[in-house]
Amino acid sequence: MTITARPADRLLDAVRGGAQIYDLGRLLTIGMPQSPNHPAYWLSMPRRHGDMVRADGGSAANDLLVMGTHVGTHVDALAHVSQDGRLHGGADAAQAQTGGRFTELGVHTVAPMLRRGVLLDIPAVLGEPCPAGYEITPDDLATAATRQGTPVEPGDVVLIRSGWGRHFDHEDRRVYVGHDSGVPGVGEAGARWLAARQVHAAGADTIAFECLRPGQGHTSLPAHRVLLVEHGIYLIETMALEEIARDAVHEFTFVMTPLPLYGATGSPVRPLAVVGRG
Amino acid sequence: MTITARPADRLLDAVRGGAQIYDLGRLLTIGMPQSPNHPAYWLSMPRRHGDMVRADGGSAANDLLVMGTHVGTHVDALAHVSQDGRLHGGADAAQAQTGGRFTELGVHTVAPMLRRGVLLDIPAVLGEPCPAGYEITPDDLATAATRQGTPVEPGDVVLIRSGWGRHFDHEDRRVYVGHDSGVPGVGEAGARWLAARQVHAAGADTIAFECLRPGQGHTSLPAHRVLLVEHGIYLIETMALEEIARDAVHEFTFVMTPLPLYGATGSPVRPLAVVGRG
Amino acid sequence: MTITARPADRLLDAVRGGAQIYDLGRLLTIGMPQSPNHPAYWLSMPRRHGDMVRADGGSAANDLLVMGTHVGTHVDALAHVSQDGRLHGGADAAQAQTGGRFTELGVHTVAPMLRRGVLLDIPAVLGEPCPAGYEITPDDLATAATRQGTPVEPGDVVLIRSGWGRHFDHEDRRVYVGHDSGVPGVGEAGARWLAARQVHAAGADTIAFECLRPGQGHTSLPAHRVLLVEHGIYLIETMALEEIARDAVHEFTFVMTPLPLYGATGSPVRPLAVVGRG
Amino acid sequence: MTITARPADRLLDAVRGGAQIYDLGRLLTIGMPQSPNHPAYWLSMPRRHGDMVRADGGSAANDLLVMGTHVGTHVDALAHVSQDGRLHGGADAAQAQTGGRFTELGVHTVAPMLRRGVLLDIPAVLGEPCPAGYEITPDDLATAATRQGTPVEPGDVVLIRSGWGRHFDHEDRRVYVGHDSGVPGVGEAGARWLAARQVHAAGADTIAFECLRPGQGHTSLPAHRVLLVEHGIYLIETMALEEIARDAVHEFTFVMTPLPLYGATGSPVRPLAVVGRG
Repeated sequence: MTITARPADRLLDAVRGGAQIYDLGRLLTIGMPQSPNHPAYWLSMPRRHGDMVRADGGSAANDLLVMGTHVGTHVDALAHVSQDGRLHGGADAAQAQTGGRFTELGVHTVAPMLRRGVLLDIPAVLGEPCPAGYEITPDDLATAATRQGTPVEPGDVVLIRSGWGRHFDHEDRRVYVGHDSGVPGVGEAGARWLAARQVHAAGADTIAFECLRPGQGHTSLPAHRVLLVEHGIYLIETMALEEIARDAVHEFTFVMTPLPLYGATGSPVRPLAVVGRG
Repeated sequence: MTITARPADRLLDAVRGGAQIYDLGRLLTIGMPQSPNHPAYWLSMPRRHGDMVRADGGSAANDLLVMGTHVGTHVDALAHVSQDGRLHGGADAAQAQTGGRFTELGVHTVAPMLRRGVLLDIPAVLGEPCPAGYEITPDDLATAATRQGTPVEPGDVVLIRSGWGRHFDHEDRRVYVGHDSGVPGVGEAGARWLAARQVHAAGADTIAFECLRPGQGHTSLPAHRVLLVEHGIYLIETMALEEIARDAVHEFTFVMTPLPLYGATGSPVRPLAVVGRG
Repeated sequence: MTITARPADRLLDAVRGGAQIYDLGRLLTIGMPQSPNHPAYWLSMPRRHGDMVRADGGSAANDLLVMGTHVGTHVDALAHVSQDGRLHGGADAAQAQTGGRFTELGVHTVAPMLRRGVLLDIPAVLGEPCPAGYEITPDDLATAATRQGTPVEPGDVVLIRSGWGRHFDHEDRRVYVGHDSGVPGVGEAGARWLAARQVHAAGADTIAFECLRPGQGHTSLPAHRVLLVEHGIYLIETMALEEIARDAVHEFTFVMTPLPLYGATGSPVRPLAVVGRG
Repeated sequence: MTITARPADRLLDAVRGGAQIYDLGRLLTIGMPQSPNHPAYWLSMPRRHGDMVRADGGSAANDLLVMGTHVGTHVDALAHVSQDGRLHGGADAAQAQTGGRFTELGVHTVAPMLRRGVLLDIPAVLGEPCPAGYEITPDDLATAATRQGTPVEPGDVVLIRSGWGRHFDHEDRRVYVGHDSGVPGVGEAGARWLAARQVHAAGADTIAFECLRPGQGHTSLPAHRVLLVEHGIYLIETMALEEIARDAVHEFTFVMTPLPLYGATGSPVRPLAVVGRG
């Protein structure tokens, strides 16, 4: 028996050559900040070690997980938002959800992502973290891309850092949610800028991705409409972007594998930014 | 403002050069086969489109997710199994689980995986799918690696295909669980073979990874002991391996990002096998 | 300060005079028989004693409960079933459920029950437990009432014992569910007999209350239609009726307090049959 | 066939004679006030009318319920609290909870209650609702009982109204929880007063039953220790007592049927105060 010659695989060679992995997913903990519109994250162990010990001395512990699918770092499937009763592509939302799952635009239809990723670091442009309720403008986005030398290209995953992520671990979880203060992010104009560049997905370091005015909550979500409904661009929320910003990692291989929850409107994810060697 | 020259990134270049992605995760559906030892998978929409329509015509749907963490395609953290009251590394299991979460060996400590992966296709060796209750031997494993030309190396993720995965979609979900029939997989000897090769993680197309004798259920799980407890090697279960076997993809870039469920014993995952171009 | 004379309360006097309480609710355990149409019952302790001990030596344990509302012994609210798109009283079902809860006919509108209860013991009429799939006839019901000397009166809660409850603790939970075998119960004719007597609620010792034909499952549920939709009569399912039958308790005070789960279609309950002294 | 003469049943006669039922359970709604120590209440409809319509035009809706067992109006089982590692009766708490359920002191061992109930209306004594953090004294309790003419007797269920229940529906759910403000209730002395009277259970219109000092949360819960651990007296929390106070109903038949959640530390309940006619 002979060992057959394996064909070259540049990707595998690059992986084996060494790569720096940045974790863009938030740790999931009970009590973490999340929108009250979604079921709270909870985890419990039905079985602990010692509860049932086998004859050979072995024992297992396990968990019961309860959560909304738009809690922690997560991706919005296209089924998540409708406008005037229509989903992306024009499907009737009421009809599409019959049966309690979205056969067509559910999160199980979101293909795993292995793509070029670009971080647009807005605080680096502004000279400070985006203030509460600040609307990130197309100019801000363009300036970041230009200064970083990372033009946005079709098919990219673009991550927009507002700096708001520094509040995620605040002892008062309402600070990150920011209902009263407002939260920074893009508005309709910024969303159109992204759509015009035909990005595949867009992410942010906030719960709702887009600019929330003080005290307004989710009364108006134009970026969701533009990106999810009009253009079929996925949204990724509650991302951890501090570390890649600190290391000035503006271009990278973006990796994300949504759970194939059949028919669901979103999924918790743990996205990665991977930097290979030259 | 000038565009700075970006340094070369072989990984990103390879990704942009095109890659074939194989999805190794099972679709998560209500009623799918799972072990009765773990909480059943359930998904429900608290809010559907039309329930609350904003003034601007926008509406959102969302989900409530309930499941065990060892349900569907999933990874076992080292905290999952103990032997004689000890976890991997010797920690006292009872103490480690105080507080209802594993600070040290919980699934949040499982780093995202971007590594060489090897499929060991045992039915290709045997000339037929492994029979129910069949124990895959070290010889089977070694023969597969040799015939395929894919020697197992330290740090690899090794996926062992028994062929049992063809039962996953059987209309009688008990067939795949296989309590009465038994389920094929490695035993203690096969586990030692893997451990000797210092693999990083090992996966299979069955719920329990290892050989289950007919009617015995989980009364004895020696491979869990050898791999998780003695050697700190992660296990991945309920994988979809039919497609890569069909395409004879025996070596690939393995990608897996467990959810960082703080303190949990496992996580649902959607692993990928990625094949780059030459 | 003087003790004011308390007015007589015949009810309280009777309670204090002693009463025999029969528990008609099934123990809720993980793995108990239930319909696969409803989320499985699961219970887990997020916190156990010793997880967090206060400075004074006190410690608490608590639970996370997950279940369908039509699991274990439970009551069906009128919102549970619709016919041709209409709920009891003619409300449009699609409209009534907007928002994900039933404001009008949800289980929170089911008043606590403290009423005359009547057990109709059909096996006592037939001379044996009702066979699988047996349809209990109006004659069976009338004969039981007559022989027992317990005529059914308007406002009563009528409990129909088929004898099927003896399977509840069978080691194979599918026996009680009875999909293949069929399950005994009333059909449309029996339901009309109950409705004609203007009962307030009707219960049974089976999951689905009514007669299920072998292998048919829930393809046709005429008694639900007649009782819930046409007549606004509540249904109580999966009851434990063996003990009152054994003691020949055919008339009693029926007590039931559904949980006021706002907008839900049902609630787990623990109904009682109480027998006072003469 | 003759109708046998039925023996007299004073209880049933009293029930049929008419009784006023007061509902002491809070409506269970998403977002209601609850302790953050317990899993949040959530309800969702997996199936709505129209999702699956049978050939005959029938359709059903159902629910998925997720909650802690100490959420909403609920009863504490004796297993809920331990002191110095011991449960009521001296059992070792760590051992008793092995297996993830309390075989001995779980809530399934709490018998349904049909007993004399007494409301002690403390605001009626004080002339105003108890202030935040106020400790209800034995004198307050004794004065209420005397003024009302309702002495507390062994076996009674005693409900202590502080007036705090008026905050339950406050738009800011933190007001009722009262972490910063403190919450009124009995302290160790009041608990000993109840224990000395050998009551069967004690309830209150607050989440934690007992006096919480401002900003202290649950750092010290002496009444739980005295009543649950030392004396085996059940606690009922988050009760709705405004209506019986308004109607000056101080003595009544108390009805409560905890769900027999096998091995759990508590259960949601819907207790009743029933007043019969003279």
